[in-house]
Amino acid sequence: MSPSRIQIRTRIGIVGAGPAGLMLSHLLARAGIDSVVIDLRSRREIEQTHRAGILEQDSVDLLVDTGVSDRVLRDGYRHDGIELAFGGGGHRIDFQGLVGASTQLYPQTDVFVDLADARERDHGDVRFGVTGVSVDGLVSTPVMRFTDADGADHEIRADFLVGADGSRSLCRREVPEAARRQYFREYPFAWFGILTEAPPSAPELIYNHSPRGFALISQRTETLQRMYFQCDPTEDADTWSDDRIWEELQSRVGANGHTLKEGPIISRTVLPFRSFVQEPMHHGRLVLAGDSAHTVPPTGAKGLNLALADVRVLAQELERAVAAKDPAPLASYSEHALRRVWKAQHFSYWMTTMLHTLPDATPFDVRRQEGELASLTGSTAGSMYLAEAYTGWPKGR
Amino acid sequence: MSPSRIQIRTRIGIVGAGPAGLMLSHLLARAGIDSVVIDLRSRREIEQTHRAGILEQDSVDLLVDTGVSDRVLRDGYRHDGIELAFGGGGHRIDFQGLVGASTQLYPQTDVFVDLADARERDHGDVRFGVTGVSVDGLVSTPVMRFTDADGADHEIRADFLVGADGSRSLCRREVPEAARRQYFREYPFAWFGILTEAPPSAPELIYNHSPRGFALISQRTETLQRMYFQCDPTEDADTWSDDRIWEELQSRVGANGHTLKEGPIISRTVLPFRSFVQEPMHHGRLVLAGDSAHTVPPTGAKGLNLALADVRVLAQELERAVAAKDPAPLASYSEHALRRVWKAQHFSYWMTTMLHTLPDATPFDVRRQEGELASLTGSTAGSMYLAEAYTGWPKGR
Repeated sequence: MSPSRIQIRTRIGIVGAGPAGLMLSHLLARAGIDSVVIDLRSRREIEQTHRAGILEQDSVDLLVDTGVSDRVLRDGYRHDGIELAFGGGGHRIDFQGLVGASTQLYPQTDVFVDLADARERDHGDVRFGVTGVSVDGLVSTPVMRFTDADGADHEIRADFLVGADGSRSLCRREVPEAARRQYFREYPFAWFGILTEAPPSAPELIYNHSPRGFALISQRTETLQRMYFQCDPTEDADTWSDDRIWEELQSRVGANGHTLKEGPIISRTVLPFRSFVQEPMHHGRLVLAGDSAHTVPPTGAKGLNLALADVRVLAQELERAVAAKDPAPLASYSEHALRRVWKAQHFSYWMTTMLHTLPDATPFDVRRQEGELASLTGSTAGSMYLAEAYTGWPKGR
Repeated sequence: MSPSRIQIRTRIGIVGAGPAGLMLSHLLARAGIDSVVIDLRSRREIEQTHRAGILEQDSVDLLVDTGVSDRVLRDGYRHDGIELAFGGGGHRIDFQGLVGASTQLYPQTDVFVDLADARERDHGDVRFGVTGVSVDGLVSTPVMRFTDADGADHEIRADFLVGADGSRSLCRREVPEAARRQYFREYPFAWFGILTEAPPSAPELIYNHSPRGFALISQRTETLQRMYFQCDPTEDADTWSDDRIWEELQSRVGANGHTLKEGPIISRTVLPFRSFVQEPMHHGRLVLAGDSAHTVPPTGAKGLNLALADVRVLAQELERAVAAKDPAPLASYSEHALRRVWKAQHFSYWMTTMLHTLPDATPFDVRRQEGELASLTGSTAGSMYLAEAYTGWPKGR
């Protein structure tokens, strides 16, 4: 150990200051448990990353009930349903009527800002822009080392460590191969996503099935909209002119009778599709939460919600572990969280395969998808099954 | 035309004396419309073909209500649910509790015998074991030609022709290419099916998901059972010893805590899996019904039920067509029937892909299937959605 290293102790060391890490730190503070959160990225960098924007009811409640912010209710948009468009028409899935729940349109960036503000307000210890992060002593005496933004070296000893460090997680890799199982799936397509300065084209999300491929009409604010369409994973977004993008989008949604309100396209990106799970979500005194343990494809917007569901359970189990000075509750966390993770993996896969066109799809596959969409929208039970998954399964399920 | 040809006229000429053709002829007779049914196979040949044995509630009602037979109620077994077995345990889908419906275990062979007996009782004109079948004049003056079992040549003129001649339909091929669309799907596996002289291993069907592949425990009588397991489509059933078959079956169902009661295996076959639809289901004065227009994979047992649903609608539309001397109602039949066909295609595909292991399946795929089965069995809405499809959507839907 370098003699100039600053040493401190905390209960919980958290790697990753995204929504999962910050919400966990916030929940722990409310339970009187101190933590330190570190992140390689600057606060500004995280704030400028566009991510999903659909919150389940329980995610909204978590933000509001724990005093993070009620901005989600003020600035967000409540969506009481979605539309599934296929075969030339549209069919609304009425969440309120079916399962008495809603979702909230509120970007992940804003969730992050609210959480970062809350941590700052409560004098939480969050270090952005650190470098040289490493974790050690996972099964005995956990320690987290890093160099802070000013160049000072730190060593933080903790009772437990949490890897909330996203899909390229460093913590995940510290679990020995013999102690983990990794599950992958690649998809032969990606999403071409744009931000456009235009009024909303629809009041709710519209999931468009079309023989040309999937397209999603979504919203952000009164003057800014988010749209996506299925593309090849190797597509180079920068080679697409605005005209070509609009033409592609209009032709897909036009197949089901929709027309988009166009505007300048201010951002364009290709989002990869993949599924990933690492099991179990604990090892010794380390636990994983959010994207570090699982990635879902974006269809159905489960990523952020799953991360918040993880830390809601994790905070309680860490409280028990700290009180008992025993890592046993971390195994309960893993078991509990993984049940929801696999349900969400299936849901994301289902929404994806029901709505997207595979590169080698035959006309049979397209007609069968339409048969599924007709079955689902024609059945109250089927619509409820989708609605309960979309709006989020009940707490603890 | 050969001068020795016997010429007769009938309202409806029906090619194929399987359950679809015979039930249609029976329904037409009840409406006072005469028909002639022909089949290449002998009655004995059809009686000796083992086929699916699960009837939807509406199929049972159709047999009973139209006076075909109440043997289906006396000799059949009412099943109020199925079990989905996965991840080491079993989860019952309670049809009665969920949707107030049941299915009836009653082999297709017995349905055929009941219908053939009913046609004979009512002096219906059914010719088995004919040869040299051809149809002609589809858009103007339909005619059906064949040589009967005694070697006499026949020419039957009809107002309308029905192709109920199964998955290798001759009638289907008479529709010009420009007037039809064909949809196919092959599956990279088949079912290895056995008949065994043993007592039932379970009171209801058990659909077994296992990492080694799918297996289905089903029943026939108190002393005869039907079992299936997923195999390679090129598998040669004759090379399998009884011991090897039982070992494979026991290991798959054993993964979920079941044990089979073994007995001598008296029949073994490999059943191919494929999906097929021809659209539309009419051309001029010809209509297609049952397997001639659509084939489903056996998972979920929709084949026979779909054929009976077809002819229930078709009999009514033919009645209208005969009365109006106009083929227009045949288009309504096609449109109506295809809605159910594509729902059934999706349902059969869904049951298949949820429960079978693809040859290139990754551990992710297996875990995700378990995630789906857990979602479905853990959700009342999801279980209802499956139950309403399995027991048959309401009449006319």
